[in-house]
Amino acid sequence: MGSNLARNLASREGNTVAVFNRSYEKTADLIETHPEAGFIPAKDYAEFAASLQTPRTAIIMVKAGRPTDAVIESLLEVFEPGDIIIDGGNALFTDTIRREHAVRETGVHFVGMGVSGGEEGALKGPSLMPGGSDESWITLGPILRSIAAVAEGEPCVTHVGHDGAGHFVKMVHNGIEYADMQLIAEAYDLIRRGTGKTPAEIADVFAEWNTGELESYLIEITAEVLRQVDAATGQPLVDVIVDEAGAKGTGAWTVQTALNLGTPVSGIAEATFARSLSSHREQRDVAGVLPSSAEPLTIDDDAAFIEDVRLALYASKIVAYSQGFDEIRAGAAEYDWNIDLGEIAKIWRGGCIIRAQFLNRITDAYRSGEDLPVLMTAPYFVEALERAQAAWRRVVVAATQSGIPAPAFSSSLAYYDGLRAERLPAALIQGQRDFFGAHTYRRTDKPGTFHTLWSADRSEVEAEDTH
Amino acid sequence: MGSNLARNLASREGNTVAVFNRSYEKTADLIETHPEAGFIPAKDYAEFAASLQTPRTAIIMVKAGRPTDAVIESLLEVFEPGDIIIDGGNALFTDTIRREHAVRETGVHFVGMGVSGGEEGALKGPSLMPGGSDESWITLGPILRSIAAVAEGEPCVTHVGHDGAGHFVKMVHNGIEYADMQLIAEAYDLIRRGTGKTPAEIADVFAEWNTGELESYLIEITAEVLRQVDAATGQPLVDVIVDEAGAKGTGAWTVQTALNLGTPVSGIAEATFARSLSSHREQRDVAGVLPSSAEPLTIDDDAAFIEDVRLALYASKIVAYSQGFDEIRAGAAEYDWNIDLGEIAKIWRGGCIIRAQFLNRITDAYRSGEDLPVLMTAPYFVEALERAQAAWRRVVVAATQSGIPAPAFSSSLAYYDGLRAERLPAALIQGQRDFFGAHTYRRTDKPGTFHTLWSADRSEVEAEDTH
Repeated sequence: MGSNLARNLASREGNTVAVFNRSYEKTADLIETHPEAGFIPAKDYAEFAASLQTPRTAIIMVKAGRPTDAVIESLLEVFEPGDIIIDGGNALFTDTIRREHAVRETGVHFVGMGVSGGEEGALKGPSLMPGGSDESWITLGPILRSIAAVAEGEPCVTHVGHDGAGHFVKMVHNGIEYADMQLIAEAYDLIRRGTGKTPAEIADVFAEWNTGELESYLIEITAEVLRQVDAATGQPLVDVIVDEAGAKGTGAWTVQTALNLGTPVSGIAEATFARSLSSHREQRDVAGVLPSSAEPLTIDDDAAFIEDVRLALYASKIVAYSQGFDEIRAGAAEYDWNIDLGEIAKIWRGGCIIRAQFLNRITDAYRSGEDLPVLMTAPYFVEALERAQAAWRRVVVAATQSGIPAPAFSSSLAYYDGLRAERLPAALIQGQRDFFGAHTYRRTDKPGTFHTLWSADRSEVEAEDTH
Repeated sequence: MGSNLARNLASREGNTVAVFNRSYEKTADLIETHPEAGFIPAKDYAEFAASLQTPRTAIIMVKAGRPTDAVIESLLEVFEPGDIIIDGGNALFTDTIRREHAVRETGVHFVGMGVSGGEEGALKGPSLMPGGSDESWITLGPILRSIAAVAEGEPCVTHVGHDGAGHFVKMVHNGIEYADMQLIAEAYDLIRRGTGKTPAEIADVFAEWNTGELESYLIEITAEVLRQVDAATGQPLVDVIVDEAGAKGTGAWTVQTALNLGTPVSGIAEATFARSLSSHREQRDVAGVLPSSAEPLTIDDDAAFIEDVRLALYASKIVAYSQGFDEIRAGAAEYDWNIDLGEIAKIWRGGCIIRAQFLNRITDAYRSGEDLPVLMTAPYFVEALERAQAAWRRVVVAATQSGIPAPAFSSSLAYYDGLRAERLPAALIQGQRDFFGAHTYRRTDKPGTFHTLWSADRSEVEAEDTH
């Protein structure tokens, strides 16, 4: 990804790019393979720094954690105040906050930047989510705009916010990506098991969906993946691939951070856990003994069922994005970042993995001037949810009755029903907590915190909350 | 809780208990209120240490985090090698590991100990989960056995494992507690909305359930809570309590840790998020615009529906415990703790919040001599899941159709169906990941990692996994 981003940079008018890698062999390789880029090779950090005009800008693309710290330390030895170090890896945003504060002391700017788009995006134009200081953005803005993807005429980059804001937003982007991919996988599984269609036939379904409101990169590539035939066996490739999904941790970070923030991102959590469940071969191997009363899914009208699944996917996707944007909103409040949520949706329209047509609707929602504590309560989504609603329930019912796991579909719907419930049984939980732990509760009819003397005389006493 | 534990200790033959609190007023209060305890008051740490026989044993019950560190530092100034410091608070187990390693250098033993049972348990006999060194257990064993709850003649305490093992197990205990409480809340909500029964009538249902296989402390107190009438209004208390559930963080820790371990604990996650959802008043206030096509739940046969809910609760509870024990198993492997899982189930039979009859069955399962990568694949649970199965699906279908949020019920069932699925759509996810990120995949028919050149000639190349 680093070399692709370097090639992207070099291909834009006015940029001269120096490259450095711990292994000089790799640097030499890159320069030989891409003479058109006019790369300046550097054998060490001093040479690298000397080859750049001031203020220097370095983009680090290495493994998150210790390797990133090591490169920063080396760069600080050769950089000067006013220079800029960008970390373009997937760093945990709290590490980025720590690094930004430490590097700032030296007068060098440190910018944690989310980069999305995979290998191809890095080369042709990624979505860029830089954090860091306002001052660094003055220098970086033009450079980053030159290499970013362009969507509807606008470069997919914005100054997200201070210190760790860029990596935070990139983390949530990936969390939404986990949910979106899991939802697509569930849709595929339901259609396949329900209708008996082949992967190639289901590829046509996804290709068709990609012409409508679900239009997105992930739907598009799903069609490609499902259409792929394995050369060695002649089987659909998807049937040859081991059904154990890997993960690199950003989904888990998104959920862990949401738990700290108290923001329910249940769809992202289910998607992350679905991947870990799939990869526990030793557990799945013994799970054959688990009984099932489920009836095989039998579908009378394939087209109607497929349309139901499409609507269920759309509704669940709205929930996933809504939960993700709620997390960004909560993160901005917690870390004091001034994040323009509508702008975030805009810079995700191109380059990145979750680019999708309906991001424009998210921008509209946040630009409406209304405060929006839950994204999906915006009129456009309310209308979509109204339309999808009955189909969504039918699909979850079908999955439940037929024993087809649809954790993200069903979790999204349960979240939806929870959010709109006038009254939740959380009151019972508060009663239990007061019973066994004297945790107190509040009353619907007057302010204050209260504790019932449960075991004594069943009377209620007004209590100070001492917790 | 600290004073109750001190009273418990003082009430056992042969124990003399010294008490110290930052505020001497509180110490004086305790001594005045409980002359029978024969407490020795201490004005400062030096006096506290001087009043104890060696090897000294101190139990700290303060807020997790900095306050705990501060007390440890003060104790280390007055304690000698061989003395024991017990942290009985809900510390994060990684903090306990750090503290144990640091304190060990001084020759003093540090024991992180989980204490469960709430206020009453602390006084009458809690379930105790001490970690720490084998040497400390020689001294502590008799003391802790004297104050622990007794279940079927056995004290509810064991040496869980080294350093942070005790707090880890206590954390998962609390995570299971979150799931259990949420499942009970969903059962109550479904019965109430489905049958129109009053809380007092539903209290009878829970009291009845408590005579069968669901027998447990949480079912028992649910009946108590639902039966409670509010003195001020004459309404059922559960209807007067604000329906926003609080949380102290151990549920979130359980999920965050499971994400690090790659162990799916989706039921605990849904329960934790259900609490945070309930407490987002500002979100629920705007959610009234969310449409619903759900039909109100109409039940023909109340008794049959209630029995279905009971079975759904039982099956979901088995999943919650299974996920929790899988997390302990994974934690033990990761942190090199020799945890006897059957023994953990035993010490939870008394004193603690999740004490339940069926913990004996968990002990049996782990004592069977079989390796058990998934708890619920043990014969007893397989039989129960077989019996509960159809009812479980009917209840999730009813909740889905009627728009009653049952996130923990439906998540448990989806996890169950995922685990027993012969083939998961995770293969599609691996295909997507290889498409956009060259993350590679494995094949079902031969070893190695592979990457398809998607955009080029649709051919497959053997790839080294370089990630």
